[in-house]
Amino acid sequence: MRVAVLAHGKFPDRAKTAVGVLRYADYDVVSVIDRDHAGSRVTDHVPGVQDAPVVAGFGEVPEPVDALLIGIAPIGGGFDESWRPDVLAALSRGCDVIAGLHYFLNDDEEFVSLAAENDCELRDVRRPPDDLSVSEGLAGAVDAEVILTVGTDCSVGKMTTTMELARAAKAAGHEAAVIPTGQTGIMIEGWGTPIDRVVSDFTAGAVEAMIRKKGDDYEYLFVEGQGSIVHPAYSAVTCGILHGAMPDALVLCHEADRDRIHGYEPFPLPSIEEYVDLYEGLAAPVSDASVVAGALNTSDLGDAAARDALVDFESAIDAPATDVLRYDIDDVLEAIV
Amino acid sequence: MRVAVLAHGKFPDRAKTAVGVLRYADYDVVSVIDRDHAGSRVTDHVPGVQDAPVVAGFGEVPEPVDALLIGIAPIGGGFDESWRPDVLAALSRGCDVIAGLHYFLNDDEEFVSLAAENDCELRDVRRPPDDLSVSEGLAGAVDAEVILTVGTDCSVGKMTTTMELARAAKAAGHEAAVIPTGQTGIMIEGWGTPIDRVVSDFTAGAVEAMIRKKGDDYEYLFVEGQGSIVHPAYSAVTCGILHGAMPDALVLCHEADRDRIHGYEPFPLPSIEEYVDLYEGLAAPVSDASVVAGALNTSDLGDAAARDALVDFESAIDAPATDVLRYDIDDVLEAIV
Repeated sequence: MRVAVLAHGKFPDRAKTAVGVLRYADYDVVSVIDRDHAGSRVTDHVPGVQDAPVVAGFGEVPEPVDALLIGIAPIGGGFDESWRPDVLAALSRGCDVIAGLHYFLNDDEEFVSLAAENDCELRDVRRPPDDLSVSEGLAGAVDAEVILTVGTDCSVGKMTTTMELARAAKAAGHEAAVIPTGQTGIMIEGWGTPIDRVVSDFTAGAVEAMIRKKGDDYEYLFVEGQGSIVHPAYSAVTCGILHGAMPDALVLCHEADRDRIHGYEPFPLPSIEEYVDLYEGLAAPVSDASVVAGALNTSDLGDAAARDALVDFESAIDAPATDVLRYDIDDVLEAIV
Repeated sequence: MRVAVLAHGKFPDRAKTAVGVLRYADYDVVSVIDRDHAGSRVTDHVPGVQDAPVVAGFGEVPEPVDALLIGIAPIGGGFDESWRPDVLAALSRGCDVIAGLHYFLNDDEEFVSLAAENDCELRDVRRPPDDLSVSEGLAGAVDAEVILTVGTDCSVGKMTTTMELARAAKAAGHEAAVIPTGQTGIMIEGWGTPIDRVVSDFTAGAVEAMIRKKGDDYEYLFVEGQGSIVHPAYSAVTCGILHGAMPDALVLCHEADRDRIHGYEPFPLPSIEEYVDLYEGLAAPVSDASVVAGALNTSDLGDAAARDALVDFESAIDAPATDVLRYDIDDVLEAIV
């Protein structure tokens, strides 16, 4: 499938869905749409992913193209009205539109009627299935080892780490699968439940259902974590995933030098040691999971500073760690499989 | 308003909504409906609440009656089809029906059409408002002291403790209000948001919105807690309330002699000391709340055993505790106000 990825004003640093799709999805990305970077190319901004031109609007996306994918997810998950002309242009050209927003395309009358007119599909991947329920406390019984990525904050690399670990485990000959819990993971894997969108009472149950669906067919399940256990807004999601997944092991993800909660700057991050204690302490009554490895996003640091930061991080978690996009992943994988 | 309260097969021990309404709401309860206890009276089972006959079905509820209230909330919040004849009988007699289930009466075609025919209202108190969003991390800024009840499990007395503390604070001359987060609290107070039913991402935000709505008009807000921070199914709700409310103080609620999670018996409860550490440790990065008092449900114990259990519980939490329905609440209130 050939897709254009919308990322107005956010590419690449605040467009994690766009970057995740460029890096891991099977889509052929024909353009990234960001009016602030029009005229550049994807690899001018992000090395090591598929390349494509960056254009100012859907009107400049070349044929053939099958779908427009909304590649940004602002805090709150709303639809930015400045994107409307691009969505309308895509539908007018017969393209499907794929989004992972809390705002559903299928609830927008203008989109729905134009999609019907042009025989296009509006795919809201953040709309959870209707058959969810409360957890039965049974995820721990599956055959697979369950590995959950947990974070010190949002946007520190949990999804990326999950994808890289699963890819490395497969490359090492293991039967491994990803359990996608957020819009990007779902777009990449083609299935999954947007846990942040389910009814609060069903948070753990929705994760449990995915674990039980896949758990006896694989040696390892890598569960995409969300948020952080001390996030003022999103900790409920994190906690529900922790207890719903009943992980056997945790991988702590952190961005080097981040010391305040992004978007909630009055709140400093606790120490790494405190995070380890909080996650392990909270998991313990439900599943005996410890932090067995770490993933440190060092993209803002030079090589020497990055290596120093990794040494400090490994010492704080008392386990091997790496930057999964920059350095070797073998020691971290070894600690897990 | 004159109401009949449905509690088939569950009254009183597993009918906490029914008992909460009998104890705290302004409704005049004309009958409790429980086919297993028909012929008895409420006060045969529960001392110290308003009395009413227990009948087998709505057909035996005397006139006049304004509403049928569903007073039980099974795990999962489903509608038990054995209740249907009572709901239909109530609607046929022109009564409103009030429920706090995950299953919405307003989604049931038979109920909707009969309600329309008889000009009755179907009130689903567990349906959250449409205007919720993510927390902005601002609940800590309100003038009121915010006190949150937290528990070692579901159904250990968080709602009851919240109501008794608010009542005692008012009796002592303070401006105090309850922040209702569950169906029973909402039915009693006549407002509130069913936190377990909101979108997971909005869990903290929904609590924050209530705190900010009331926080500058009162000296004390008593927030009704939900679930437990280590509950395999419901911990997401608990965690979202903890961080969304940004409490100044916590009151730990526990049922004496409970040692396993109700309905999830493979999971033993951690020690009381561990709960204190987990709740305080998890709250700390967002608000500096400590456990300042405890509430112990001793209803299954004789007086001597209850008093011994209270001494042990006070020692474990290192703070004063009481059974709010059985013993004096003054020392506990003193620790809070």
